[in-house]
Amino acid sequence: MKSFGKKAWTLPQPVLIIGTYDENGKPNAMNAAWAGQWDNHEIMISMGKHQTTENLNLKGEFTVSFATAEKMVAADFVGIVSQKNDPDKMAKTGWTVVASENVNAPVFTDFPMTMECRIKEKQKESATGCYIIAEIVNILCDEKYLAEDGKPDVEKMNLITFDPVHMGYIQLGKRAGNAFSDGKALK
Amino acid sequence: MKSFGKKAWTLPQPVLIIGTYDENGKPNAMNAAWAGQWDNHEIMISMGKHQTTENLNLKGEFTVSFATAEKMVAADFVGIVSQKNDPDKMAKTGWTVVASENVNAPVFTDFPMTMECRIKEKQKESATGCYIIAEIVNILCDEKYLAEDGKPDVEKMNLITFDPVHMGYIQLGKRAGNAFSDGKALK
Repeated sequence: MKSFGKKAWTLPQPVLIIGTYDENGKPNAMNAAWAGQWDNHEIMISMGKHQTTENLNLKGEFTVSFATAEKMVAADFVGIVSQKNDPDKMAKTGWTVVASENVNAPVFTDFPMTMECRIKEKQKESATGCYIIAEIVNILCDEKYLAEDGKPDVEKMNLITFDPVHMGYIQLGKRAGNAFSDGKALK
Repeated sequence: MKSFGKKAWTLPQPVLIIGTYDENGKPNAMNAAWAGQWDNHEIMISMGKHQTTENLNLKGEFTVSFATAEKMVAADFVGIVSQKNDPDKMAKTGWTVVASENVNAPVFTDFPMTMECRIKEKQKESATGCYIIAEIVNILCDEKYLAEDGKPDVEKMNLITFDPVHMGYIQLGKRAGNAFSDGKALK
């Protein structure tokens, strides 16, 4: 076993596209990977200082889309470039933007699945950011990505994950098995 | 777009194997998916009430291994069966257990990569569990899974993720691109 010390290498990390409106109602998107399910109806996101952070402070609501291989280039772009430096940032993504019906935030319909979220709690706000705990108000899924049972089919989405070791995006592949089920073989 | 209301469907979720010792120094493992990178050297895990929760309260230290397709059946098993009901739980996994050199917890060497962690903070302890913020003390990687540059090669690991929509495990596939890089094409 080789030791690597302290690294931010939780595996795998999601690739979340956070959608917000600024003070003028202009949509923005950023890319985040330090996040996870917090509780049954809540998500946690570790936020740095960004235009998105300011928007969140202002509106308290946002969307989270799960990035795909098809939209990877623009999903990476919104994590590299700040709207503060490039007012045309969103136009360059080519994404279609519609208003969420449930929260004061934009929905990027190019992604298969989107959470509509409302901030419940901000922890440890500092000059470098904060930790956000948000209520999942609703989840939207494009009908193209539904399974026969009417629920989202994750395998159809070509979702990507963030590899923090080699700064890459790794695509989800085939289904390996059944949770709360395959392990029964060892009972 | 179809609406699904409030669901615990953050995508994708990791499959973490949490390793702890009980009061007698007996190793235990459980499977957790509500977790994520919290900050640069910290991980967050949303914990229910389990034998592992008691062990964590006692020792304050644990390991986190990232589950693989090869070890999926036993990784699922440790999430289904409690050591409280089956004292032979760990023997049934067939995993090799060694003592961590850095924390008071077991390392399951059947997994490619393991974090050695120390609890820094427990939030909102209740009858149903708590949220754990833990310092990543060190990361171990089996030499078999190193890339040419000497760092862990995530693509070699056949890691699995938890699909909370259809209760499945989905394997990581091929590398789709380069983070903080591919998006420059849109600048």
